[in-house]
Amino acid sequence: MSLLTVGTVAFDAIETPFGKTDKIVGGAATYIAWSASYFTKPVNIVSVIGDDFDMNELAALQDRGVNYDGIEIRKGEKSFFWSGKYHMDMNSRDTLVTDLNVLASFNPIVPESYKDCRYLMLGNIDPSLQIKVIEQLPVRPELIVMDTMNFWMDIALDTLKKAISMVDVLTINDEEARQLSGENSLVKAAKKIMAMGPKFLVIKKGEHGALLFHNNDVFFAPALPLEEVFDPTGAGDTFAGGFIGYIAKTNDLSFENMKRAIIYGSAMASFCVEKFGTERLKSLTSEQIDERVNMFVALSSFDIELV
Amino acid sequence: MSLLTVGTVAFDAIETPFGKTDKIVGGAATYIAWSASYFTKPVNIVSVIGDDFDMNELAALQDRGVNYDGIEIRKGEKSFFWSGKYHMDMNSRDTLVTDLNVLASFNPIVPESYKDCRYLMLGNIDPSLQIKVIEQLPVRPELIVMDTMNFWMDIALDTLKKAISMVDVLTINDEEARQLSGENSLVKAAKKIMAMGPKFLVIKKGEHGALLFHNNDVFFAPALPLEEVFDPTGAGDTFAGGFIGYIAKTNDLSFENMKRAIIYGSAMASFCVEKFGTERLKSLTSEQIDERVNMFVALSSFDIELV
Repeated sequence: MSLLTVGTVAFDAIETPFGKTDKIVGGAATYIAWSASYFTKPVNIVSVIGDDFDMNELAALQDRGVNYDGIEIRKGEKSFFWSGKYHMDMNSRDTLVTDLNVLASFNPIVPESYKDCRYLMLGNIDPSLQIKVIEQLPVRPELIVMDTMNFWMDIALDTLKKAISMVDVLTINDEEARQLSGENSLVKAAKKIMAMGPKFLVIKKGEHGALLFHNNDVFFAPALPLEEVFDPTGAGDTFAGGFIGYIAKTNDLSFENMKRAIIYGSAMASFCVEKFGTERLKSLTSEQIDERVNMFVALSSFDIELV
Repeated sequence: MSLLTVGTVAFDAIETPFGKTDKIVGGAATYIAWSASYFTKPVNIVSVIGDDFDMNELAALQDRGVNYDGIEIRKGEKSFFWSGKYHMDMNSRDTLVTDLNVLASFNPIVPESYKDCRYLMLGNIDPSLQIKVIEQLPVRPELIVMDTMNFWMDIALDTLKKAISMVDVLTINDEEARQLSGENSLVKAAKKIMAMGPKFLVIKKGEHGALLFHNNDVFFAPALPLEEVFDPTGAGDTFAGGFIGYIAKTNDLSFENMKRAIIYGSAMASFCVEKFGTERLKSLTSEQIDERVNMFVALSSFDIELV
């Protein structure tokens, strides 16, 4: 009855208007695991790293109930490395370096101990690898959530569409939803994308919040207006980890519960951006998370009665 | 106990990806009056037009309880004319023509019959004229709402700041809030702008909704995700008209009621963009407005209990 996630475990070097880092730990699966660990245990990671990776980071995740038996450690090779620089408005960034390293030949293997997977979170990675993970599971998980990005739309659209057809929830940003559907209206885009397979679509709009579509229903979750956004890296993955972590905790796949999951995911993302990398995600308490969720309630509540 | 508004009554020619118009009736005060007329009567307009204006349009407004005694009609002169073309994404536009015509020498005179003004909506216009209107009122209105734009920040910042210092609610968009405050974070921007005078700040974010700031409170109202945005012209003015119209109707200046006013304003704006110009605003019913408001309730409701 576990949560399985596949994605990168990697090094990042980040520059924002507020400062810059040396190589720090990042990667989609890392953020997903940290975030989900506040809601459910175990969180089982499938990924690949080189022997340059900091094993203390994996030990810290293990202390929070995260298994890394499914992380292949390649001797004599280097971990995936990404470096980027954010613009002043923090909404856009330039990629400075992408060294695939171990990721270039990654072949995900799901350990036997992971195969009782009830919830599957496919982090952003080559869609052919996302498909490989699904195909290794003897019983289809109750919920498969998939994140992806425009890069795969540009270079592997057919494979991407096959992966999308296999999942329950797709999470992408607004520009990606427009690109994938060819529609400018997000309402029209959502209909076309749900026709590709997913019953639910989450459109992430960064500082403008997130939309959840399902059949003809729409839910809008605001982003918390923050005094400082220090580093947006990993916010989308942290959102996804909180989203599926909350669903795994509550074991409720209704639209009403998905809405709550979106709010918890948004709350986790609002912590993520307060410090560089995963730092802020390492020391949260349930009380802090509840307090943050209450800020979302206050932010979006009004008392007009439904007629 | 009336609502007074000052602003342009004008001609527009609009081009969008969906079509183009000849000269049609537009102007901030026109949209404000149509929108507010669904909530309160009378709505008193102060403006200026040439004798080229279509008097049937004024008669149609009068039928909805709008007074135009305060609209100066200049013989032998032309009405203000604006022409613009929207880009494919409908979020940005190019101005093609701005013919000030009668607006170049506009000197607003508030008729005696308007002076028992309880609610004042200053539409986007030269801030020196907004100040002139305030100064003609023998008793300060209970609530003064002011709309403006980046143009006045560029060419008349000191006068603009004087006007801002005299009002209760300022409505601007997110880029304008950043320009006016010099802050990228909207939370920081809101604090600086409220320190200039207004107790409330509404930051309009178009398709991303609107934020209401007051002291340390923040409220986020989503925009309705629409299948088609046909013509965004006047959406901000329509929002403002619905906002102050609802407040005038309910006569309640609490933060909780301002939130409701934002939702009603957003609902009115969502109608405005469905057709060219003011067309969609001319034939609404209370039932349609309530139905639209209920869509906002459904869009933003979730049931996490405040701890």
